[in-house]
Amino acid sequence: MIIVLKRDIDEKGVNSLIGEITGNYEVQVQPIKGSECTVLGLVGDTSKIVVEELGSDERIHKVMRVREPFKKANRAFHPANSIIQIADRTIGGEEFAIIAGPCSVESEEQIVEIAKSVKTSGATFLRGGAYKPRTSPYAFQGLEEDGLDLLKLARQETGLPIVTEIMYPQTIEKFVEDVDVIQVGARNMQNFALLKELGKTNKPILLKRGLSSTIEEWLMAAEYIMAGGNDNVILCERGIRTFENYTRNTLDLSAIPAIKKLSHLPIIIDPSHATGFSYMVEPMCMAAIAAGADGVIIEVHNNPAKALCDGPQSITPARFDEVVRKMEKYTAIEGRTIRRG
Amino acid sequence: MIIVLKRDIDEKGVNSLIGEITGNYEVQVQPIKGSECTVLGLVGDTSKIVVEELGSDERIHKVMRVREPFKKANRAFHPANSIIQIADRTIGGEEFAIIAGPCSVESEEQIVEIAKSVKTSGATFLRGGAYKPRTSPYAFQGLEEDGLDLLKLARQETGLPIVTEIMYPQTIEKFVEDVDVIQVGARNMQNFALLKELGKTNKPILLKRGLSSTIEEWLMAAEYIMAGGNDNVILCERGIRTFENYTRNTLDLSAIPAIKKLSHLPIIIDPSHATGFSYMVEPMCMAAIAAGADGVIIEVHNNPAKALCDGPQSITPARFDEVVRKMEKYTAIEGRTIRRG
Amino acid sequence: MIIVLKRDIDEKGVNSLIGEITGNYEVQVQPIKGSECTVLGLVGDTSKIVVEELGSDERIHKVMRVREPFKKANRAFHPANSIIQIADRTIGGEEFAIIAGPCSVESEEQIVEIAKSVKTSGATFLRGGAYKPRTSPYAFQGLEEDGLDLLKLARQETGLPIVTEIMYPQTIEKFVEDVDVIQVGARNMQNFALLKELGKTNKPILLKRGLSSTIEEWLMAAEYIMAGGNDNVILCERGIRTFENYTRNTLDLSAIPAIKKLSHLPIIIDPSHATGFSYMVEPMCMAAIAAGADGVIIEVHNNPAKALCDGPQSITPARFDEVVRKMEKYTAIEGRTIRRG
Amino acid sequence: MIIVLKRDIDEKGVNSLIGEITGNYEVQVQPIKGSECTVLGLVGDTSKIVVEELGSDERIHKVMRVREPFKKANRAFHPANSIIQIADRTIGGEEFAIIAGPCSVESEEQIVEIAKSVKTSGATFLRGGAYKPRTSPYAFQGLEEDGLDLLKLARQETGLPIVTEIMYPQTIEKFVEDVDVIQVGARNMQNFALLKELGKTNKPILLKRGLSSTIEEWLMAAEYIMAGGNDNVILCERGIRTFENYTRNTLDLSAIPAIKKLSHLPIIIDPSHATGFSYMVEPMCMAAIAAGADGVIIEVHNNPAKALCDGPQSITPARFDEVVRKMEKYTAIEGRTIRRG
Repeated sequence: MIIVLKRDIDEKGVNSLIGEITGNYEVQVQPIKGSECTVLGLVGDTSKIVVEELGSDERIHKVMRVREPFKKANRAFHPANSIIQIADRTIGGEEFAIIAGPCSVESEEQIVEIAKSVKTSGATFLRGGAYKPRTSPYAFQGLEEDGLDLLKLARQETGLPIVTEIMYPQTIEKFVEDVDVIQVGARNMQNFALLKELGKTNKPILLKRGLSSTIEEWLMAAEYIMAGGNDNVILCERGIRTFENYTRNTLDLSAIPAIKKLSHLPIIIDPSHATGFSYMVEPMCMAAIAAGADGVIIEVHNNPAKALCDGPQSITPARFDEVVRKMEKYTAIEGRTIRRG
Repeated sequence: MIIVLKRDIDEKGVNSLIGEITGNYEVQVQPIKGSECTVLGLVGDTSKIVVEELGSDERIHKVMRVREPFKKANRAFHPANSIIQIADRTIGGEEFAIIAGPCSVESEEQIVEIAKSVKTSGATFLRGGAYKPRTSPYAFQGLEEDGLDLLKLARQETGLPIVTEIMYPQTIEKFVEDVDVIQVGARNMQNFALLKELGKTNKPILLKRGLSSTIEEWLMAAEYIMAGGNDNVILCERGIRTFENYTRNTLDLSAIPAIKKLSHLPIIIDPSHATGFSYMVEPMCMAAIAAGADGVIIEVHNNPAKALCDGPQSITPARFDEVVRKMEKYTAIEGRTIRRG
Repeated sequence: MIIVLKRDIDEKGVNSLIGEITGNYEVQVQPIKGSECTVLGLVGDTSKIVVEELGSDERIHKVMRVREPFKKANRAFHPANSIIQIADRTIGGEEFAIIAGPCSVESEEQIVEIAKSVKTSGATFLRGGAYKPRTSPYAFQGLEEDGLDLLKLARQETGLPIVTEIMYPQTIEKFVEDVDVIQVGARNMQNFALLKELGKTNKPILLKRGLSSTIEEWLMAAEYIMAGGNDNVILCERGIRTFENYTRNTLDLSAIPAIKKLSHLPIIIDPSHATGFSYMVEPMCMAAIAAGADGVIIEVHNNPAKALCDGPQSITPARFDEVVRKMEKYTAIEGRTIRRG
Repeated sequence: MIIVLKRDIDEKGVNSLIGEITGNYEVQVQPIKGSECTVLGLVGDTSKIVVEELGSDERIHKVMRVREPFKKANRAFHPANSIIQIADRTIGGEEFAIIAGPCSVESEEQIVEIAKSVKTSGATFLRGGAYKPRTSPYAFQGLEEDGLDLLKLARQETGLPIVTEIMYPQTIEKFVEDVDVIQVGARNMQNFALLKELGKTNKPILLKRGLSSTIEEWLMAAEYIMAGGNDNVILCERGIRTFENYTRNTLDLSAIPAIKKLSHLPIIIDPSHATGFSYMVEPMCMAAIAAGADGVIIEVHNNPAKALCDGPQSITPARFDEVVRKMEKYTAIEGRTIRRG
């Protein structure tokens, strides 16, 4: 950690500050006296120092962290890729994960039909919303518990592990029992109360990136779960909020190599929510594979005739099948496989 | 609501779509046939239509909402300013609210001393964090329940109503009993599970704007609380996330006239967290008053010698006193008063 | 175009406004009377109406454009892909363009050596900065005219057409004579004075997207050049400015399918400047191909020992060769070819 | 300047790098050996080192600048406020500047009438666009030279100095002769070709902040003009581009105290363009004064009946008069005066 002092701090002031720092933290301090000001280099365990707090000192101009504040999620301390085991399949290893299904679980017929269809095309996990975070309190909030039951039914019929979003901390126990991967939505990425509870379980967690979260904050959110003892974290990039409003959000595909460099955790991509356009699902899936992603999560709806209840970003099962066929060509180049069934 | 159809939809297609819409929603549809495409105007109660869902239809090019989706928070349906009563004082009326106190409650001595000091200077509410949302799981998470007890003690000593942030839904009952204003932090602005629970209480809620939330989303979050039956919502602008990183966030003071135009709810400003600099607290407080804010929330710490544990955005009690003296001149122009004691 | 009127405009007011609009513009107006307000649908040539200007009327709540404001760049009026001819090669057709070279032209030895090397690996165009836009007036501003001469020399040695950035309108004549593709940098994307002059030439223009330009503004900048009579515009996505600062900018790969849908112009990707990291060049090149780009522009430097003068986003010729080998596999899937030599 | 090395660089590598740096630049290097990596502190004149270039070295993890890269614009080297003299008035001193006038100069009658009216109300400068940067090539581009002539006429009638935007480098001579303050628009803030030319004049330059420019980049743009010898730079904040689209841009009023801290240059605010709403002009003007601005620039139009040709952000002369009356109360608190006539 580097501390830049204000211009007018004299030698006595510098020494006094060094004394305070070494008194408060287990670090050694090396001063550099420049022509304009003095800079302090802190050596040792600086992970307990909160930059904002230290920066409050009136003698300090700026505090700069040299190394990342995350540890358990840091590739520096865990060089090998993490491979998350879910039922008889994995995310983060050789297998390329394809999570598919409708935005919301609507009925037994709907979810079972979609599940069978996407499985035949090559999906390896089933997604579907039971509890829905909606911007408006007047919009449909999901089938809730009944939705979970329908997902279980679809799993029974197809063998596909299920991925669904949690919203209420009081439902954690039920989710741990019922689902295979618990999704934390973008709006809850820094709901630390929820993250802490999930850290106490050993369920795989699909942690979506917050709309305005930096890569560092995202990894710190993963760190919250891992600090509690749960290392089974899968990251999901789903678009960040920018000035551009042609697309719903801006899909940040450079986050893939960034995460691969900084962390050992797997990362998957959600092209449906990121772009908001069904016509972008195919090119963004291919780009995700080419950029090194470990999987994709795609919205598929089965009944275009009742399209009024589906999102414009959903694709049909037939289109999904074409997309998977093309994904096979791309994953082959990257030496990855798409498991069938 | 306006629906723009794709270019290639013929008259039969237009009529069939109109039939579906009037069948699904209680609206009337008026088509406009243009040279390039047809546009549908929907008249009636469109509040139950989710734009994203309707936009999914393959025949539809674009859906545009004509009016705001929020109702209870909308000034159009509630022209007079809402004035929130808290103990014997108000926010949103003639009194200008000054909420002051430390970032975190640290000890009885600290919180009581600051409370007395800020009261003498003119603060009308005491703030202090008991439960702290921290980016890092390794940082101090607050005194939690003990912090609440210390805040109550400070209230007893000074008579200042207390404002503090909630993080855990399971603590709502305790917060309702113990505190005067429950703060929802920026990171929880779209924690709909929490908002719904707070909607069931009748406590005043200080709803901070999310870092990347639009004004409309912010008012929709207020709508969540109000839809549950709790109309006591106070909005708090605390900076939005932008590309500029000299300041911690970008304080959006134009949100004040925007909120005043769109909604009847009171709005206060947090210059400390928005800018991250103590030297900006004074100018941003004055600007907030001049722009029409109903109050400010300011971080004040009492012990600069132990400054290592306070944020760089905090000001000292002496500085706070100067700021309040200057605020009195500004509020006078706006015809507002600062209540003493 | 849709005009939403304020709530309190009565029938007489509506009729009077309609009269003014039809008097000022060659359009027909169809009113829709809703329960809350009246909406006007404008049919006809609305391209001359400036939304901001019309919106100023005190009777008007909101103006919404139904169709895109660009014409010559619009795929709706030019369904086939534009293929730009440059010397004996093309951009936008079956050939995948690879533009490679150093950030700055430094010396004859440097530029000729790099040109030969990248040509052997498969580059189809040579890039190199002669006039350099630098944030600081104290930084190296390029070799200017001498740089252009060195580029011509390298072209003579290798046959590679040259691409370089223009900064000064007074150098347009020289650029038209000397270079094969004139690059307009991100900072000049809305330098309308420059765009107008380039519209009078018939040179291919590589138009970089502005750091904070929407896709619509970018296409309107292309429209400026095309309105002058020059249809040879190639778009280049090079990252947009967002809150994320791990990468230099955020590469918006969803702009590729967006541009392909909205326009007939070719689009290439600059992974070097977008990300600022050499390690991201390979994955972002592959992702660009997979997303449907027509080419890439890559920084290559030849002398890592003197690396102090090159950008951290540059790759070595050896690395470039590996990247091109991998690109060949990806372009093959997309049915495109990389021309050799 | 601080250089953080990669983890795997050994002592020999560190020494070799230090040798290269001291060989290339006139600096001394002090290494700090940490547990995880080595950090180098560079002491001396680091202004010629381009961070991006140094960061390219494969041995370097990160480069962090300790001090600002701007010099002539830096308050550290010029502690007193710069006061810019324009005719018989000043910007940056005790006088609060009010620049008012229409978006575009339309006719003699229009500009002279507005000029007289705003002068009577208290405007101290006349603004009006002769050359207009328009997003669309099909929109009105201004009266150009004729517009300049009309502005001169209005100046002759009222004595108000004139402020107008330059777009074409070839018109600089004419602007220097004809106008009192040359405005550089937001889109041209990093048009370095133009900035360099303006640096050779001694005209006051009103430098608008780019839509996505950081405060540092804005001051570096000022530095370009000052490096050429022209110290007469006035900064103008006019809103930055963010995700919020209720307002046209987001007015960053915290830029006022930031600029006052970092620089000695005067700063004024443009509430009209920043917000895009006439109803926000008054509150944002008051907030600007309260935050410490040296002036405001406001759009005023005189003919609401022909409002179709004016921006929705313009206010009427009557409204302008009310706003100035209120500004007088605010400037009085700040110890500043509004010159009449």
